[in-house]
Amino acid sequence: MNNPLRDPLDQRLPRIAGPSSVVLFGVTGDLARKKLMPAIYDLANRGLLPPAFALTGFARREWNRQDFRAVVKESVQAHARTPFNEDTWEQLAEGIRFVEGTFDDPDAFARLRDTVQTLDDERGTGGNHAFYLSIPPDLFPEVCRQLADSGLAADREGSWRRVVIEKPFGHDLASAEELNDVVSETFPPDSVFRIDHYLGKETVQNLLALRFANRLFEPVWNSAHVDHVQITMAEDIGIGSRAGYYDGIGAARDVIQNHLLQLLALTAMEKPDSLAAEHLRAAKEAVLASVRLPEDLDTYTARGQYLGGWRGGKRVDGFLEEDGIEASSRTETYAAMRLTVDTPRWKGTPFYLRAGKRLGKRVTEIALVFKRDSHGLFAQGSHGAGGNALVLRVQPDEGVTVRMSSKVPGSEELRDVAMDFAYGESFTQASPEAYERLILDVLLGDPPLFPRHEEVALSWKILDPITAAWNAQGRPEAYRSGSWGPRSSDLMMERDGRAWRKP
Amino acid sequence: MNNPLRDPLDQRLPRIAGPSSVVLFGVTGDLARKKLMPAIYDLANRGLLPPAFALTGFARREWNRQDFRAVVKESVQAHARTPFNEDTWEQLAEGIRFVEGTFDDPDAFARLRDTVQTLDDERGTGGNHAFYLSIPPDLFPEVCRQLADSGLAADREGSWRRVVIEKPFGHDLASAEELNDVVSETFPPDSVFRIDHYLGKETVQNLLALRFANRLFEPVWNSAHVDHVQITMAEDIGIGSRAGYYDGIGAARDVIQNHLLQLLALTAMEKPDSLAAEHLRAAKEAVLASVRLPEDLDTYTARGQYLGGWRGGKRVDGFLEEDGIEASSRTETYAAMRLTVDTPRWKGTPFYLRAGKRLGKRVTEIALVFKRDSHGLFAQGSHGAGGNALVLRVQPDEGVTVRMSSKVPGSEELRDVAMDFAYGESFTQASPEAYERLILDVLLGDPPLFPRHEEVALSWKILDPITAAWNAQGRPEAYRSGSWGPRSSDLMMERDGRAWRKP
Repeated sequence: MNNPLRDPLDQRLPRIAGPSSVVLFGVTGDLARKKLMPAIYDLANRGLLPPAFALTGFARREWNRQDFRAVVKESVQAHARTPFNEDTWEQLAEGIRFVEGTFDDPDAFARLRDTVQTLDDERGTGGNHAFYLSIPPDLFPEVCRQLADSGLAADREGSWRRVVIEKPFGHDLASAEELNDVVSETFPPDSVFRIDHYLGKETVQNLLALRFANRLFEPVWNSAHVDHVQITMAEDIGIGSRAGYYDGIGAARDVIQNHLLQLLALTAMEKPDSLAAEHLRAAKEAVLASVRLPEDLDTYTARGQYLGGWRGGKRVDGFLEEDGIEASSRTETYAAMRLTVDTPRWKGTPFYLRAGKRLGKRVTEIALVFKRDSHGLFAQGSHGAGGNALVLRVQPDEGVTVRMSSKVPGSEELRDVAMDFAYGESFTQASPEAYERLILDVLLGDPPLFPRHEEVALSWKILDPITAAWNAQGRPEAYRSGSWGPRSSDLMMERDGRAWRKP
Repeated sequence: MNNPLRDPLDQRLPRIAGPSSVVLFGVTGDLARKKLMPAIYDLANRGLLPPAFALTGFARREWNRQDFRAVVKESVQAHARTPFNEDTWEQLAEGIRFVEGTFDDPDAFARLRDTVQTLDDERGTGGNHAFYLSIPPDLFPEVCRQLADSGLAADREGSWRRVVIEKPFGHDLASAEELNDVVSETFPPDSVFRIDHYLGKETVQNLLALRFANRLFEPVWNSAHVDHVQITMAEDIGIGSRAGYYDGIGAARDVIQNHLLQLLALTAMEKPDSLAAEHLRAAKEAVLASVRLPEDLDTYTARGQYLGGWRGGKRVDGFLEEDGIEASSRTETYAAMRLTVDTPRWKGTPFYLRAGKRLGKRVTEIALVFKRDSHGLFAQGSHGAGGNALVLRVQPDEGVTVRMSSKVPGSEELRDVAMDFAYGESFTQASPEAYERLILDVLLGDPPLFPRHEEVALSWKILDPITAAWNAQGRPEAYRSGSWGPRSSDLMMERDGRAWRKP
């Protein structure tokens, strides 16, 4: 089993995928067009895909192979990270196939099977195929059944078949279990890759290196020194054209269940026995199993719905005015909560999570706010210094910031200053897109960054009581577009004598 | 007693000197011209000197008041940090006086007394006078005696007289005791201000704020986490025209006894009870009293003399070829040593000190190099990562750097990156010259940054056995100009499995 940061003996060797193909369901969707197809091209351009690589599209379109190549090319030219290179493209394009069909048509899947077998013969893909389900979850059961029935899901000796599914992994514990049952019937657990693209981000991966390859941080990484942790995922945009998906889901299910709880798990976990997938997952699951909800859910959670306002000089609609949203919708576009982690390391240190749309700024960060020294030499708070904090910036401008108190030159005053490290400035290599990393990991069978079902289930167990409590109540509190969320969220912090960061 | 970083209630109030004067001995010297007179002007320009301020020069020159004003003006215009302002200058110039005389002439000191009294009457300096002895130490006894005999040293009820002396405070313990006896006969200990201009540097003062106002650093500030400490003062220049002073003194006495051991004391000291002078000094003295020499002085000290070479495209002389240096000189221009601090906090953590001229770069820094984690997830050393370190940069580019291991984007490799904080970039205020701060502290009677005799004596006790051992040996080892010192110094580190930083 491979490590995300592998054995030092071979970590300088490039990780190049072996003979394999990706079969893409949902080729006409935004994700496929803007992220997946460009990421595959970028991997090819970086030399990380083998000559024996193929990409097959499956959709209900009257396209032939040439048509689909044109679709892929257009997507690559519009969205790829690396420059367009004719040679790379020609090499990749030769392996592009298309199968026309609907998800409930056994004949279409028979044609897909033939296509895949032909690729094995002609292109040398060696029977290794990843089925990427970039489609709504309610279609998973049908597609899985067809893959099983057509024999496509069965791996032969010495080759592999894998399935890639995108979040949301259900909308509560029950539906997640159901979804898992469906997928498990067709694919064994080790062949299921759940994509949480946040886990492909450099900073998230680097969290492991930061914590465990440096001596400076781990000794203070506990409740003796950390007053509290804030995990923020703020978006400045609204729901855009995603009303159909978003309404009834909301901020908590959309991003807290997966992104934010994963960030919490990586931040709070104990040192794993090794970087191997089973150890990493065990460490994350141990944290998620130790997460405790506040006794008083009314007081220590908050939710909101954005009102209209101005953004970048343009008038923007409130959530209830968005296309496709009922005026009576109670879906929250902002969610915040105080969790605790019932491990010796974190006894007494609350973790505050918040996620919202139409907030003041687009930013995702983990902030460890250190305790003030009550018996300190320097009286705190009276000098404009907010205290010491370690901030892991996930996006944008990935990096690490230490906020610390420093003396103002030529004066006696303390003031907060920032000590900063930015990936972009420190490395000439640009950070690959998260999807590049994740697709490569799928082809390599490298699982540490992918959550398994147990993690998904544990996350829903945390969230379900909160969403149930909210369901029993009225409308979420309104907040202005461009603000930092509803007043009840600020009050939650004030009650604890703390305040949200304004990143 | 005031604090260097004062009570939070009044720390935003500017610290402005009360009615007072400076009497400057050695007005024709480099230090007075390049540093002291410009610093006084800059203080005036910053509004930190009262209208009732005066500056009196004393020298064997046939100058009148106007001549001396012209000398001061020229020095200010050439060397002041802040822009020349006519109003500031006029105000300052009105308080400038000059007394012609030699240091052994009672009549001259009688004239000085009259001048000072007249200033009290005319200018309102209130009987508060600081005698700044910017003169060679062998002249101190005579000047102190004359100040005493003329009645100048005696403070009256409600006013003060202070004496300011510059390092070197002797050249060994015996001569330092002698010097102290001479000064103490005339001035009580609280009226003696020993100037170590390194202690006026912002970073040194900020070391206290960094360590004690931030929670991130103090928990790892001990031998459980710090593998070793390196304190470096590297100069890229040679001795210049200072042969007369430097020959027979050498690097250890010139800078290790004062600057480097003060930096060691501030780095290694326990948290003081408060920031008041008596507590700070007690904390520093406790460290200096706990410093232990290596048993094997031959192995764990190193010294060198620079050879000729090239610097900035120009041929430069070796130390033995410098004007005023005998070809047989055994004075070291590079000194290094391993010390230990026998306190529970630092048990097992060596402190390596080095100071030298004609080294690769001008830099003064304190580096805490953290332990490698032998049971870590990440094998160390095999990936080009030198390990975690906290570097306090004293000069140039004052600031703080954390060297840490980080993942290279898109790769599995760890590499050292730097997280950086620079005073210059974080504050719009320029850092005042060290002398501004120190002269203001003298006028305010604010003693925490000044070492008292006990610290000086303790430092000599550390150094005397080393210089004695060196005296019993032959010539220092030669090293090339522009290199990082003699081979024996590198060997000293290699023997411990460590290496000097190349800043």
